[in-house]
Amino acid sequence: MQRKPYAEMTAQELQEEIRTLKEAYKKYQAMELSLNMSRGKPCIEQLDLSMGMMDMLSSQADLNCADGTDCRNYGVLEGIEEAKQLIGDMMENHPDNIIIYGNSSLNVMYDTVSRAETHGIMGNAPWCSLKKVKFLCPVPGYDRHFAISEYFGHEMIPVPMTENGPDMDMIEDLVASDAAIKGIWCVPKYSNPQGYSYSDDTVRRFARLKPAAPDFRIFWDNAYGVHHLYDNDQDYLIEILAECKRAGNPDLVYKFSSTSKITFPGSGIASIATSLNNLEDIRRQLRIQTIGHDKVNQLRHVRFFKDIHGMVEHMRRHADILRPKFEAVTSIFEEELSDLRIGSWTRPKGGYFISFDAMEGCAKDIVDRAKKAGVVLTGAGATWPHGQDPEDKNIRIAPTYPPLEDLKLATRLFTLCVRLSSAQKLLGERA
Amino acid sequence: MQRKPYAEMTAQELQEEIRTLKEAYKKYQAMELSLNMSRGKPCIEQLDLSMGMMDMLSSQADLNCADGTDCRNYGVLEGIEEAKQLIGDMMENHPDNIIIYGNSSLNVMYDTVSRAETHGIMGNAPWCSLKKVKFLCPVPGYDRHFAISEYFGHEMIPVPMTENGPDMDMIEDLVASDAAIKGIWCVPKYSNPQGYSYSDDTVRRFARLKPAAPDFRIFWDNAYGVHHLYDNDQDYLIEILAECKRAGNPDLVYKFSSTSKITFPGSGIASIATSLNNLEDIRRQLRIQTIGHDKVNQLRHVRFFKDIHGMVEHMRRHADILRPKFEAVTSIFEEELSDLRIGSWTRPKGGYFISFDAMEGCAKDIVDRAKKAGVVLTGAGATWPHGQDPEDKNIRIAPTYPPLEDLKLATRLFTLCVRLSSAQKLLGERA
Repeated sequence: MQRKPYAEMTAQELQEEIRTLKEAYKKYQAMELSLNMSRGKPCIEQLDLSMGMMDMLSSQADLNCADGTDCRNYGVLEGIEEAKQLIGDMMENHPDNIIIYGNSSLNVMYDTVSRAETHGIMGNAPWCSLKKVKFLCPVPGYDRHFAISEYFGHEMIPVPMTENGPDMDMIEDLVASDAAIKGIWCVPKYSNPQGYSYSDDTVRRFARLKPAAPDFRIFWDNAYGVHHLYDNDQDYLIEILAECKRAGNPDLVYKFSSTSKITFPGSGIASIATSLNNLEDIRRQLRIQTIGHDKVNQLRHVRFFKDIHGMVEHMRRHADILRPKFEAVTSIFEEELSDLRIGSWTRPKGGYFISFDAMEGCAKDIVDRAKKAGVVLTGAGATWPHGQDPEDKNIRIAPTYPPLEDLKLATRLFTLCVRLSSAQKLLGERA
Repeated sequence: MQRKPYAEMTAQELQEEIRTLKEAYKKYQAMELSLNMSRGKPCIEQLDLSMGMMDMLSSQADLNCADGTDCRNYGVLEGIEEAKQLIGDMMENHPDNIIIYGNSSLNVMYDTVSRAETHGIMGNAPWCSLKKVKFLCPVPGYDRHFAISEYFGHEMIPVPMTENGPDMDMIEDLVASDAAIKGIWCVPKYSNPQGYSYSDDTVRRFARLKPAAPDFRIFWDNAYGVHHLYDNDQDYLIEILAECKRAGNPDLVYKFSSTSKITFPGSGIASIATSLNNLEDIRRQLRIQTIGHDKVNQLRHVRFFKDIHGMVEHMRRHADILRPKFEAVTSIFEEELSDLRIGSWTRPKGGYFISFDAMEGCAKDIVDRAKKAGVVLTGAGATWPHGQDPEDKNIRIAPTYPPLEDLKLATRLFTLCVRLSSAQKLLGERA
């Protein structure tokens, strides 16, 4: 049964609607829920998929690499060869373009910015010596990216996202005209939070940017490169390093990745892929910073997956767990909200998030209401620099962690909060 | 049979000696040795001691902490409680004063300096904004400490080491009078390279320093805190955090440690211990830099050792492997060199190194000669800032990695090189 859109309701109809919704809300409160949908955390069943990795290196195992390196001892600054091969296949980059790090790609990104701050990039002035450093921030985007820029005092310039990626006209103009712009934060595939993947045209235009700053870099966080939900309906992303090379801009991009959402978050392996020039620049610092990262864990990953085919098969098992969760959320949204015209949402084919846009000025209120009924969502505004969504409308939905039945319950409650908040806002406008 | 000291030899006697030594050297060259004594690497037998750790977390194991935290997932920025307990017992610090990091204490030290450079310490100006930052460097010392300071452009001021630690008169004067001095690099127990441990008086004076700079910090790299060679003859070091607290200087020190030379170098766990004020300062950055370090590996370590007693027993097994190596080196030195009076060396009761002082101007030559006969030593000068030993006399001996018989051979060759180099120098002085 098609319901009347809220915007077309009379004040009286809205009042009636609010009364009904409040009754329903009270019932949720009485359930004393305690559900967390705030972060992109894998669920227990997903973690269980990688338990076999724990058996790869027993006390009887040979912990030598193919080239004879004893993984238990010091050495090998940039990662063991077989890990570079596996991660290279995962990232679609040549192993020679890769450095394997520790357990966190966020840490690699932080270090990359921090190194630019203290030592500059490829001979350019250290950013900390500059009056102003600006970063472009596609919005909505990933709060932890913005937090790094905020921590280092960057001026963050929001760039609107579209289904094809960020607004490239705006980016081309800005980077060409302002040498203080040193970087842009990108999640190019199954973006955080919308699940959008950059179009071919977007990637090509990125590779052909003509930045005024010689030390401008694209921070290409390909966190969800192999994180598809469907076997036969997957987004494809043009490989940016190769495209930059073809465009004559080989040093333009730092590309990041990790196995955090493939094996165990916090106990995976992270990596950077970039040009040989950039790598040489990075090495000068890396050899001061550490003797090497955890090779035993690199070997453990390689023995578990064997090769990229093993990883792809593994990701299908993740998809089997996650697909019903994503579909549950979007179908409840469809059922509960579509005819009321009080919000819109994305339908990603991969990644970890769904993006919900409420009516302007409602996001904070919705998140607060959900919290008061026991469902913690990502804070409203988190998808914007400094946590400030100027229209207060974007909410990131993280459907992966809760069990399916909990997730459905939480999503129903969420739609209830959306309806309540929207109805009250519209009623307020009538008054 | 007591031989004549080289200094008392005539030119002719020296020439005869050199002829004999060169014959012996040629025999070593003919053996085509390829031995590496350059770094403080555990040997294979030592690594084998920790293989049982690989069985602690099988696919059937429960990977939850005592408090229910699933170690496989995101979260827990500062380390799991049981790891803080174990490392706390190892470092002699309260778990609340500890943050557990990744696999490398060097990385923690680098990050600590880098954070001070970009953000300052506890509200003080970022070091990168200052004209000059100076670090005190006890010499001989650890090359990787000096490399961090060099990388960040610190002016390094050498401070002579004694058997009781660095020259405290000099340190007290310098830090009290110069606010540009922001830190000092210390390996307080079984120091690198001498194996000296700071005396009670030295530690007490460190804790009572009155630095001109409010952001002066002692970088206390307690790398060898539990790395004794003997059961009944061990150095004891006063715990610096407690001593600083007693002295009314609670925030004066950052203390670092790791299990790199307890379990697997590169796959251990590293940590910082410091005051609650300093920890709060660190947290502000750490939560931007990462979501958390590798908890699975923390749990693996805890399950393996169970408690500090397990670790102490484990270290006795390391000592059983290392003691004969240290004793072989010093007894060959004694036998080959003591009566010739052309060098002096330390006799550590723990740690990873022996320090050898040759005659002035001979260290580089000795290391070169050894290398040409197939034995790689730590580069001469490495124990000084910028790799420049002004007297060219200190050589760091790393006896841990080679098998005992190889080590003996390499040590004999080393003493031969010392003799050759010394005799030639003395002969040159006669000419």
